[in-house]
Amino acid sequence: MEMASENPESVGFLSRGCCWFTSFMKNLASKLVLEPARTARSLAQEDPRRIIHSIKVGLAIALVSLIYYFDPLYEGFGVSAMWAVMTVVVVFEFSVGATLGRCVNRGIGTFIGGALGVAAHRLASCFGSEIVEPIVLAASIFIFAATGTFARFFPKWKARCDYGLLIFILTFCLISVSGYRDDEVIDIALTRLSTVMIGGSAALAICILLFPVWAGEDLHHLVADNIEKLGDFLEGFGDEYFKTLEDGNVNFAKWEFRHGKFRFRHPWGEYQKIGGLIRECAFRLDSLNGYLKSEVQAPQEIREIFQESCQTMSSESSHALKNMARAIRTMTSSYVAVAKSHIAIAKSAADNLKSLLKTNSWQQTDLLQIIPVITVASLLIEVVSSTVKIADSVHQLASLARFKKISEDDASKSDQRNTERILRSPSIEGSHGLTISVE
Amino acid sequence: MEMASENPESVGFLSRGCCWFTSFMKNLASKLVLEPARTARSLAQEDPRRIIHSIKVGLAIALVSLIYYFDPLYEGFGVSAMWAVMTVVVVFEFSVGATLGRCVNRGIGTFIGGALGVAAHRLASCFGSEIVEPIVLAASIFIFAATGTFARFFPKWKARCDYGLLIFILTFCLISVSGYRDDEVIDIALTRLSTVMIGGSAALAICILLFPVWAGEDLHHLVADNIEKLGDFLEGFGDEYFKTLEDGNVNFAKWEFRHGKFRFRHPWGEYQKIGGLIRECAFRLDSLNGYLKSEVQAPQEIREIFQESCQTMSSESSHALKNMARAIRTMTSSYVAVAKSHIAIAKSAADNLKSLLKTNSWQQTDLLQIIPVITVASLLIEVVSSTVKIADSVHQLASLARFKKISEDDASKSDQRNTERILRSPSIEGSHGLTISVE
Repeated sequence: MEMASENPESVGFLSRGCCWFTSFMKNLASKLVLEPARTARSLAQEDPRRIIHSIKVGLAIALVSLIYYFDPLYEGFGVSAMWAVMTVVVVFEFSVGATLGRCVNRGIGTFIGGALGVAAHRLASCFGSEIVEPIVLAASIFIFAATGTFARFFPKWKARCDYGLLIFILTFCLISVSGYRDDEVIDIALTRLSTVMIGGSAALAICILLFPVWAGEDLHHLVADNIEKLGDFLEGFGDEYFKTLEDGNVNFAKWEFRHGKFRFRHPWGEYQKIGGLIRECAFRLDSLNGYLKSEVQAPQEIREIFQESCQTMSSESSHALKNMARAIRTMTSSYVAVAKSHIAIAKSAADNLKSLLKTNSWQQTDLLQIIPVITVASLLIEVVSSTVKIADSVHQLASLARFKKISEDDASKSDQRNTERILRSPSIEGSHGLTISVE
Repeated sequence: MEMASENPESVGFLSRGCCWFTSFMKNLASKLVLEPARTARSLAQEDPRRIIHSIKVGLAIALVSLIYYFDPLYEGFGVSAMWAVMTVVVVFEFSVGATLGRCVNRGIGTFIGGALGVAAHRLASCFGSEIVEPIVLAASIFIFAATGTFARFFPKWKARCDYGLLIFILTFCLISVSGYRDDEVIDIALTRLSTVMIGGSAALAICILLFPVWAGEDLHHLVADNIEKLGDFLEGFGDEYFKTLEDGNVNFAKWEFRHGKFRFRHPWGEYQKIGGLIRECAFRLDSLNGYLKSEVQAPQEIREIFQESCQTMSSESSHALKNMARAIRTMTSSYVAVAKSHIAIAKSAADNLKSLLKTNSWQQTDLLQIIPVITVASLLIEVVSSTVKIADSVHQLASLARFKKISEDDASKSDQRNTERILRSPSIEGSHGLTISVE
């Protein structure tokens, strides 16, 4: 109190300092606690399997670390038990396929690297001289490490066994180098191999047995969702973007054995083809989107002439795409047939449009006014041809993966129910035929 | 000989067997030796830095493994010296930026993981009981491993320190687990940290000192090449595809310090923006490509009317794009100004085209015949507007990165020399205005 009354300036300084400190701490707390907490909650809500995955990883590592705590287990491996822990940490991935791929890669890489490491050590110890031995070892390490590193550039190997090559280099170096100080080099190699196998099997067991995440299933649904989104766009909601299908997804799916509805050797390659066609169709819809968003509009009377054909092409392609998404999602080939019937209608609408353009009723029109409508119409014709290609691919997938059949009546009825639901929704009332325009 | 005369059938069988064996061995040799050799040669020819990189990795590992061979060095670290070898194997990447990123991640991950591991070990040993200690350790491992794994899902962290989080989990588990069997837990942690630092610095030193590969430089040239390819397409060679710009490239570049022409804090983010615009322009060119490849052609007299404007738009955009590529490649801002003068011409050609469409000379024409030409024309108008956007971004990059200036005369002269070279080349004689068509 005395201090305060003596020097009011220093009080101001102190209180300002306090203020600054409080706001700084608040900022810090929001940066370090609140924001991460918010992100964490949204990540968990988006895909709750993320939390399950984290718990599974923690569990697997804690389980494998038990080797250290129980004397009977520890006596077998000694300090090498840490390789088991390390293996769990580095091989445990989100999906079963990715984990399996890393386990196989690590196992084979450790085996080949260990075997060649032992061989290099034997070769080097043949010379018996203390000067020659390290030179031979260092030279062999240089040769294998350089060759292995270059092999990682091979596109085929990079896709399949990049991690395996890394582990091969690692194990080769460790075994051949350790052999210099420890003559029981075969023991080292065998211990390393067995601990890696224990760690790998523990990771794999927990990954598969507790709430497994199958990359193949994700891929399957992603393709169906993307086709559905194309359909949604054509219905009038076109502002969603597409997650692209990376080659990695398909690679992981290939590692997975029979699970759920998917047999071993499920035609995963087909998904990649369909993914490419979806992207092609999406680009065309993107161009279409540009015209829809543009502010300049073509005159009403011109739009009315094109309206019917454009509406038919767009809505029938939409139905076709949605039926294909349903065919993939439910693994039922009958919906592909329904989709094809919609495509037939879309095609005849495209033909109508072409003959409409052939008539001479356009001679009195300002050409600039009809360009936007014609461009949209020709883009829609391209979208129809994209849809035909997607339908062919889905048909191929359905026959290769032996999708089940239901009676055509049931399929059509389910389609009609969906169509009615769509027609009742207000959002397609402002159809594209009405709003097309160009700069 | 006797055997042969006794049993001709067995001779036939034997010789067939020999034949089969020879062809099998030939096949095997071609699969295992010839094909990889061919791939290796083409990989090396495509980018000779791959061979240099492989040699650098071999050299770094062989150098670090020397720790094992020299007694004075080995006495300091003992078996832990293998962490140095491991670090070199896993952190050595193709570019300086990627290696630096992994080194920093590994260093910080090891430090934090080790410190928390020691803390967990201290906490567990407070209880002093042989039953409680492993339970506390296993529980702390579970908590940190699960939290660390969940943190890897955070988009920001995944981009920046995914590897660091992995190493954090790894080190934490190894240190806290080893501490149970070895009381000198701080020694273990310090040895691990110092060996990781030795391995990391050796990898980094060789990566930077011997023929360094800079991710930033690669990115810089990739952007310039992509713009150049857009220009090439518009000139008439449009069958090359585009390497896309992944976020990863930019991230690696951000790790790199000042090198060559690039200052620290070079605006790498701008490259990503330009990359997005290049892709947008490429999609439009792809649509254009579809029309160029189609076999149905619009009638000659219609094409002739549009020819001049279309040719001007295409060639002027091409010159503009090539000047921007030159601006980036030589880091000279004056070429951006030259590019803008080309864009101005392209824009006025677009305006001409629009007014041409407004005239009434089209009233006698079959509309279906002019659709393809009009579509190509409107796509070219879009390409011009894409070029304008790219020019704005490159201008922004040039001012942020302080590109050097040369006199405008010199820039224009260099542009003219290039223009003449282009005009002399026969491949643009069949310009797009002449071949545009649609299905």
